[in-house]
Amino acid sequence: MEGRPIRESASELSEFALPIYANPLGNLLGGRIMHLVDLAAATAAMRHARGPVVTASVDYMTFLFPIQIGQLLTLRASVNRVFKTSMEVGVKVLVEDLTTGEIRHTNSSYLTFVGLSPEGKPRVIPQAIPETEVEIHRWEQAGERRKQRLELRARILEREKEREKENEGGRG
Amino acid sequence: MEGRPIRESASELSEFALPIYANPLGNLLGGRIMHLVDLAAATAAMRHARGPVVTASVDYMTFLFPIQIGQLLTLRASVNRVFKTSMEVGVKVLVEDLTTGEIRHTNSSYLTFVGLSPEGKPRVIPQAIPETEVEIHRWEQAGERRKQRLELRARILEREKEREKENEGGRG
Amino acid sequence: MEGRPIRESASELSEFALPIYANPLGNLLGGRIMHLVDLAAATAAMRHARGPVVTASVDYMTFLFPIQIGQLLTLRASVNRVFKTSMEVGVKVLVEDLTTGEIRHTNSSYLTFVGLSPEGKPRVIPQAIPETEVEIHRWEQAGERRKQRLELRARILEREKEREKENEGGRG
Amino acid sequence: MEGRPIRESASELSEFALPIYANPLGNLLGGRIMHLVDLAAATAAMRHARGPVVTASVDYMTFLFPIQIGQLLTLRASVNRVFKTSMEVGVKVLVEDLTTGEIRHTNSSYLTFVGLSPEGKPRVIPQAIPETEVEIHRWEQAGERRKQRLELRARILEREKEREKENEGGRG
Amino acid sequence: MEGRPIRESASELSEFALPIYANPLGNLLGGRIMHLVDLAAATAAMRHARGPVVTASVDYMTFLFPIQIGQLLTLRASVNRVFKTSMEVGVKVLVEDLTTGEIRHTNSSYLTFVGLSPEGKPRVIPQAIPETEVEIHRWEQAGERRKQRLELRARILEREKEREKENEGGRG
Amino acid sequence: MEGRPIRESASELSEFALPIYANPLGNLLGGRIMHLVDLAAATAAMRHARGPVVTASVDYMTFLFPIQIGQLLTLRASVNRVFKTSMEVGVKVLVEDLTTGEIRHTNSSYLTFVGLSPEGKPRVIPQAIPETEVEIHRWEQAGERRKQRLELRARILEREKEREKENEGGRG
Repeated sequence: MEGRPIRESASELSEFALPIYANPLGNLLGGRIMHLVDLAAATAAMRHARGPVVTASVDYMTFLFPIQIGQLLTLRASVNRVFKTSMEVGVKVLVEDLTTGEIRHTNSSYLTFVGLSPEGKPRVIPQAIPETEVEIHRWEQAGERRKQRLELRARILEREKEREKENEGGRG
Repeated sequence: MEGRPIRESASELSEFALPIYANPLGNLLGGRIMHLVDLAAATAAMRHARGPVVTASVDYMTFLFPIQIGQLLTLRASVNRVFKTSMEVGVKVLVEDLTTGEIRHTNSSYLTFVGLSPEGKPRVIPQAIPETEVEIHRWEQAGERRKQRLELRARILEREKEREKENEGGRG
Repeated sequence: MEGRPIRESASELSEFALPIYANPLGNLLGGRIMHLVDLAAATAAMRHARGPVVTASVDYMTFLFPIQIGQLLTLRASVNRVFKTSMEVGVKVLVEDLTTGEIRHTNSSYLTFVGLSPEGKPRVIPQAIPETEVEIHRWEQAGERRKQRLELRARILEREKEREKENEGGRG
Repeated sequence: MEGRPIRESASELSEFALPIYANPLGNLLGGRIMHLVDLAAATAAMRHARGPVVTASVDYMTFLFPIQIGQLLTLRASVNRVFKTSMEVGVKVLVEDLTTGEIRHTNSSYLTFVGLSPEGKPRVIPQAIPETEVEIHRWEQAGERRKQRLELRARILEREKEREKENEGGRG
Repeated sequence: MEGRPIRESASELSEFALPIYANPLGNLLGGRIMHLVDLAAATAAMRHARGPVVTASVDYMTFLFPIQIGQLLTLRASVNRVFKTSMEVGVKVLVEDLTTGEIRHTNSSYLTFVGLSPEGKPRVIPQAIPETEVEIHRWEQAGERRKQRLELRARILEREKEREKENEGGRG
Repeated sequence: MEGRPIRESASELSEFALPIYANPLGNLLGGRIMHLVDLAAATAAMRHARGPVVTASVDYMTFLFPIQIGQLLTLRASVNRVFKTSMEVGVKVLVEDLTTGEIRHTNSSYLTFVGLSPEGKPRVIPQAIPETEVEIHRWEQAGERRKQRLELRARILEREKEREKENEGGRG
């Protein structure tokens, strides 16, 4: 299975922030942003995998500024790296004030998607080939983030085992 | 007031067609497409006018193919021409099947927006300067469409006057 | 196939303008009005055709006044004329301030629908028979609007051909 | 304060049942019907009171048949009787299969609304004057329903007092 | 068929009141509360019946205070009593101001649900066994409410027959 | 400022998975789950801080199984630990099949919220006091997760600096 260049599946979604998705403080609901980030990431993942995908995890998502109702959101998503049946997708959210033209970066997210076969089983995805320096940098970072996640998971599991042992010894 | 190049306000919105907006036949609701076309056009209009705008009319909107749930819509909008306080905006809708990469053109629309002052009154908008051949062509077409609309309106008004005269003579 | 009187399929939809569909200026979203106009027109078209229909085009839709949140919309739709497999439907939107009883006309629209067979192919629709003077007037106008649309389309196509010829000669 | 004839505030709302409001069995959600019944009743109540109103109670609402996605709902609401600051509103829901023209009665509801002053306090509402036999019948029934409700409430309160007394004597 | 204790199907739903469901006065829409009450009641009914159910009627629903946007709703539902194929479910709505911790009781509702077989026919439901004093009290009240409803219905039907007889005799 | 026990702000939200939020595969949309997780976490955070809060980041969110339409979601959220003006909140999602009573754990999430003063500035939040072994375990884990996040951030920043230096030396 041949790889495919990252730029071929890079995706852009955009949405106008309407009052329907305001929070009680009058800004765009965090949950609406998460929903759009998930859709933008799924679009890039499907474009790369050329088939259905499911969100396996949100690895990190940061909210830098509240988004005002009436502003325009643009979400840029691209596959950072493929790990056999899963892939990390990065999403950046930019917000534009249409009356002034000012643009701000309000969000960065990393999500992991799994490619599915027609029967709904995980399937091997073609490699995502980085071409520019930025893409190569992200490809390396994706590996590191994965290593960190696995380390964190291992450390937590180990501790849980210790705790279980202690509990066997008594208290519960 | 100086004009601004059309390319500076050209806008792109996109949306993933979710089941929430299905019609009873299982395709994307016509009304949802109209809503997205209006938002995309308003985005280009606000970017050009750098201020609030209102939809004055939908001059033409054609639906070539039904859009399937699960497809990705991309809406490209640009200001075709400014007529003092109003402007014609054109919107083109492309639909992509993410699993095959196939893209189809499903919609073309022309809408008229009016620029508003902070007090909500119509205000003069800077000219939209066409630079490419396609932009010049659209600019000319926009003038023709406007001429046709005014002719149609005049013909209908004339006929209504005739009808009123006849009615005065009797029947009601 | 016998025709059916227009009054038999005349339809009325209504909706209370809730904050969920406000635009950032606090009025009812243009896109929500378009959605309701499409539903009201589809209702009249289905009632006349007694089968599924699809929106083929919005031929004209004009917005006279912004609609306030809290007002009651009433949409009156009727089939103006049938052209074999397609039909023009007219929709008028009235808005009532329930606390004063004042009613204003805020929208007029013309849309074209196509009747579908169970297999999803265009099918011939029974004629819509105008009975009152207003219906006869609209029936005549519908023919004129169709003529204008075909003329506009022909003029644009002709121009596009010329443009293509010029381009063949060189510039591109 | 003079009364107003019931027919002047009689109201009709209608909605096309779209997949967005389907329940997991594929029919229209009961909660969506309740929402529309509340809006239709509030419309008649506001038209009669010519001012803001709030729902005080749903006194009875019965669901005779499931409503299919794709059908057209028509809700007819009218004020049955005014009791100083409150009023009973009746709502009837009819459902039409647009492809056959068949109409069925699927719901009947009685709700109580309270009229509000600009400061949000209950305010006296003009009497609703019944003119037809049906309206007179509903006016009488509304009185009986109110009597039944007050009786039910009194019987429950009495029993609660008895229970409290018993509890004082011991068990808790 | 053995009965099941009421506590096993007691259910709790909760929702944060977002601006999307505001009414024009800025409070939570009555229709949204009805929708949530219906969902909470259906949850308890399905948990008890272990199968699909449909709302047959709303027997009473009272709104004591308007709910503010930004507050947290908690809905507690439990089956009060089973009558062969139908059951009465009671729902209580509590509202919490998260910034002060203050909790208020804003709604009480009784609804009747019918259990369905896989073919969509009414099916016999296991008895709901009350265990605490409050549950026994509700079980008794449910019987009384049912008796009142049947009495009310009988009285109305009788009157309608009388009216029909009178009409036969003349007026129409 | 005194601390408050974790159990006092532990929160539970629940929702019935309706077709409105289905993805094109017929399961509950990932973005809808994210939205509910954010609301449940915000509820616990507001209950603890007794004031407005904003989502600063989603630190981890994992999706173990797709959620079927018709199932009941229960989200349990509690503040794991406070770090001066920010706090980590953990959310667990359980899904119940109401017809069988089977319950599965489908999601675990960690989010960071920041407490706000009335002027919208970060403000110091009372400590969250763990009382049970599980709460103490989570409190310790929250510290470790924070350490890991800061390490990851530092490593990435360092690398970015190196990269910038290299770029200064040439390529760019």
